[in-house]
Amino acid sequence: MVASSYLLFVNGLACKNPKDVKADDFFFSGLDTPGNTTNKVGSNVTLVNVEKIAGLNTLGISLARRDFGPYGLNPPHIHPRATEILTVLEGSLYVGFVTSNSDNRFFAKVINEGDVFVFPHGLIHFQFNYGTKNAVAIAALGNQNPGVITVANAVFGSKPSISHDVLAKAFQADKKTIDWLQAQFWMDNNN
Amino acid sequence: MVASSYLLFVNGLACKNPKDVKADDFFFSGLDTPGNTTNKVGSNVTLVNVEKIAGLNTLGISLARRDFGPYGLNPPHIHPRATEILTVLEGSLYVGFVTSNSDNRFFAKVINEGDVFVFPHGLIHFQFNYGTKNAVAIAALGNQNPGVITVANAVFGSKPSISHDVLAKAFQADKKTIDWLQAQFWMDNNN
Amino acid sequence: MVASSYLLFVNGLACKNPKDVKADDFFFSGLDTPGNTTNKVGSNVTLVNVEKIAGLNTLGISLARRDFGPYGLNPPHIHPRATEILTVLEGSLYVGFVTSNSDNRFFAKVINEGDVFVFPHGLIHFQFNYGTKNAVAIAALGNQNPGVITVANAVFGSKPSISHDVLAKAFQADKKTIDWLQAQFWMDNNN
Amino acid sequence: MVASSYLLFVNGLACKNPKDVKADDFFFSGLDTPGNTTNKVGSNVTLVNVEKIAGLNTLGISLARRDFGPYGLNPPHIHPRATEILTVLEGSLYVGFVTSNSDNRFFAKVINEGDVFVFPHGLIHFQFNYGTKNAVAIAALGNQNPGVITVANAVFGSKPSISHDVLAKAFQADKKTIDWLQAQFWMDNNN
Amino acid sequence: MVASSYLLFVNGLACKNPKDVKADDFFFSGLDTPGNTTNKVGSNVTLVNVEKIAGLNTLGISLARRDFGPYGLNPPHIHPRATEILTVLEGSLYVGFVTSNSDNRFFAKVINEGDVFVFPHGLIHFQFNYGTKNAVAIAALGNQNPGVITVANAVFGSKPSISHDVLAKAFQADKKTIDWLQAQFWMDNNN
Amino acid sequence: MVASSYLLFVNGLACKNPKDVKADDFFFSGLDTPGNTTNKVGSNVTLVNVEKIAGLNTLGISLARRDFGPYGLNPPHIHPRATEILTVLEGSLYVGFVTSNSDNRFFAKVINEGDVFVFPHGLIHFQFNYGTKNAVAIAALGNQNPGVITVANAVFGSKPSISHDVLAKAFQADKKTIDWLQAQFWMDNNN
Repeated sequence: MVASSYLLFVNGLACKNPKDVKADDFFFSGLDTPGNTTNKVGSNVTLVNVEKIAGLNTLGISLARRDFGPYGLNPPHIHPRATEILTVLEGSLYVGFVTSNSDNRFFAKVINEGDVFVFPHGLIHFQFNYGTKNAVAIAALGNQNPGVITVANAVFGSKPSISHDVLAKAFQADKKTIDWLQAQFWMDNNN
Repeated sequence: MVASSYLLFVNGLACKNPKDVKADDFFFSGLDTPGNTTNKVGSNVTLVNVEKIAGLNTLGISLARRDFGPYGLNPPHIHPRATEILTVLEGSLYVGFVTSNSDNRFFAKVINEGDVFVFPHGLIHFQFNYGTKNAVAIAALGNQNPGVITVANAVFGSKPSISHDVLAKAFQADKKTIDWLQAQFWMDNNN
Repeated sequence: MVASSYLLFVNGLACKNPKDVKADDFFFSGLDTPGNTTNKVGSNVTLVNVEKIAGLNTLGISLARRDFGPYGLNPPHIHPRATEILTVLEGSLYVGFVTSNSDNRFFAKVINEGDVFVFPHGLIHFQFNYGTKNAVAIAALGNQNPGVITVANAVFGSKPSISHDVLAKAFQADKKTIDWLQAQFWMDNNN
Repeated sequence: MVASSYLLFVNGLACKNPKDVKADDFFFSGLDTPGNTTNKVGSNVTLVNVEKIAGLNTLGISLARRDFGPYGLNPPHIHPRATEILTVLEGSLYVGFVTSNSDNRFFAKVINEGDVFVFPHGLIHFQFNYGTKNAVAIAALGNQNPGVITVANAVFGSKPSISHDVLAKAFQADKKTIDWLQAQFWMDNNN
Repeated sequence: MVASSYLLFVNGLACKNPKDVKADDFFFSGLDTPGNTTNKVGSNVTLVNVEKIAGLNTLGISLARRDFGPYGLNPPHIHPRATEILTVLEGSLYVGFVTSNSDNRFFAKVINEGDVFVFPHGLIHFQFNYGTKNAVAIAALGNQNPGVITVANAVFGSKPSISHDVLAKAFQADKKTIDWLQAQFWMDNNN
Repeated sequence: MVASSYLLFVNGLACKNPKDVKADDFFFSGLDTPGNTTNKVGSNVTLVNVEKIAGLNTLGISLARRDFGPYGLNPPHIHPRATEILTVLEGSLYVGFVTSNSDNRFFAKVINEGDVFVFPHGLIHFQFNYGTKNAVAIAALGNQNPGVITVANAVFGSKPSISHDVLAKAFQADKKTIDWLQAQFWMDNNN
């Protein structure tokens, strides 16, 4: 069909009628509000993506505030559709990412106020507040809908559960350990 | 600078002089050879990417053979730069992938000879031969250099190791368990 | 208009409501069934694209099974939106592609079971089973809707017909020959 | 959600049902008609984009005719989504573009019938007919909806007006000058 | 490897040192010179691509002048990497393109001075001057290196030749006809 | 040539040998240091792009700190290759952007600490600290080399100067005014 020569089969959100677009379609308020870090990982991510700012539709970028309580961790996770660049506003963080097979090299660094660190597209990475004071960071992501996959949650907290035969073999652990892990409460620190 | 208006800052492999290109630059041999599955996970991936076929440079696709011994597992992994589409040539596989936060929905299915299954870009997925016979599959990946991140290897087998404080908190496990996991031998079943 | 700053004017298929997505939206069955090769070219292509697997929408990849009877030919064709990478499962094939003007270099090779060959994006290529045994191959294409243009069919079998003045001049043939060619039955071996 | 793994959040115009597509969906008539240059800048742009030819949807290209009266100017402007390549059909033009900060180098040239000039993506550029005869040019743009931002119009003719405090400081001019400029009639020579 | 997370394995021409870039790097002269149409097809294409204008590197667009003698034909061809948009400067042309399998619909139209027609990416198309006067057109292509595949030349004039067994079967012709066609002189009207 | 079928003619910076990549290749320090705003516009931009962090090569994102003294202005400018998303860390800003022709709609808003605002790709925008206190903001840009075109600098401060005939006509001003503007010192507040 002719159409198949210009149908790229890409899809997306509907845009408003341009006539109805307002400045507020490009606006979001509240990134100065600390996120609630009283949770198992002691951290909180406030993501400002296309669901929060309609005007980001197709523009390929989003922003996030990261709050860390003492020993707070933004656990190992992946953004399937984005690179992340982060800067520390307050406190110190131990950050790192691991590269692809077969090297699986771990790149890590302690970063302080005003430091910037990059987490390349699709790699497992984390940020950890190893100290007793709070930490705050701002991160930018190269997609209006970057997605977040918290590794432990996806592996041990999926709904329904992945067969423990699979996970026991993958993690070289006995099935009891896997069952125990799958029985935990896995919360998402992103909102 | 003018250049900055056309320097996209994208980089890659060098191409041969077109005059020197031969049919063999688009050729690879040996995908009919079963991979060696006598390893901890009982599976083997033979990836045919741009490192094996120079002519794939920039063409955005690659191929892989997957061999599974009895109970062989291609453990949960991610392709940071590719969607995967797989078809079973022999045997049966229990396959699945988990979606992003916060749902982390697990989509799984038993697929048999001639069945095709898709693993969307950047999501954690696996294939498991739950039976006593061998299984073989062919997978295509939407990048000439898709990359593979075996979750357990990247998390527990990185070089150097990720701090056990981070992993204990992330996986809701005690540090001894993490230390034990990090002490295991983590092999890459891709080659 | 503001919208014009984010309306990329790209279009596509509608996605299902994520809540309604099922594993079967990523699944297709039957690629182990030999295609019917009792036709003029003695070959058959079973394409698994976004029309067969809705979940491929936007994911940029598809798969195809190729069956060849004795002397079966997948005639010279083009994929306007994809590179192809093919591997032989059974038998032997004489494969090739021709490059752009002005060289029009022909790259060809006989490939056997387990061999892999790449047909770069947009180039005319074919696969021919020059032997008396059946041949089977699996091909991957770098687009969920790659499109197929069988050269002879598009040129001599279009609906309506291209003026024979045009084709006679283009193919350096007399109009009778063109008329005869246009009078043939041109079937599509893709389905 | 799974969907988020294939929803790229790109959006666009609706395509016609392929069955209903006609040759006229790829056709536009009238680019031989000189545009009316009796306006303040003495030039006229007739843009043939996706709004004029529905079949251009997603195809990433458009065409424009440029007419210049004596001393006619296509004033400094930007195409936010396209590179421009222009050729002169009649007369002579003084053309140029300015590069990004901090160099802001100005590249200019007088081009005559049959000359071709490129204006890289996103840079401020103009064409000026410094002579007493008419001039005509054809330009191609690398987007089906390239967009045009006439610098003076966007800065001094926006609706509503930009605060004169901002513009006085930006242009190192007193507010009276800015007010005077904002009071002018700013017309768009594109149609 | 980390690198694999940012090596996209895309490749290209080297850019000049921005300091050395001159206006002439964005300039080409001579598109007003009629091409020589005294050849078998009676047409001539003067392509202005990145080989003619270095500054087009990565900018995704190029331009071409098309000259047609009486009954001159720009024979059925494909641009593997570009959509084409064409406007007639002089004379009349019978133009058309054929869509993908299985429809292979032929869209055609007679276009005159000032008419514009679009040939979607990757489809077989042609332009024919069915009259006794010369015709001239300007075409824009959505790639700085669009490539041209003249169907008859690639099929019957490749170097070396495609086996006549393949072509006889593909074109439903006897081998003598194929041999005769392959014996012709196939010239490229693009330069 | 075959190469032309995979040479996309995209170009960029050279990558380091992956073996030599270090964590510091993804690191930058000093974004907590206020920029010097004692200049004509009273603002300062500290851009962290691929020139500052080599590891950003090809990753499509960058970060910037914006400092504003009292009445400090980040004057109307364009990023030819990026959308911008900004959040206020301290103080208040009056921000806005103007859309393409022919509407040239001006979208503006006063944003305070914790507010986020988006400036779509390629549009003219500014940020103004209309108050007596300092203001600080962090911006993310969707390209590792976004480029900055300060409108007034490019138009009136280019090297060499644009002919005052062109600018007088474009800005509806007399040549004396243009000459005066071109005689000013135009500084770049980005570094």
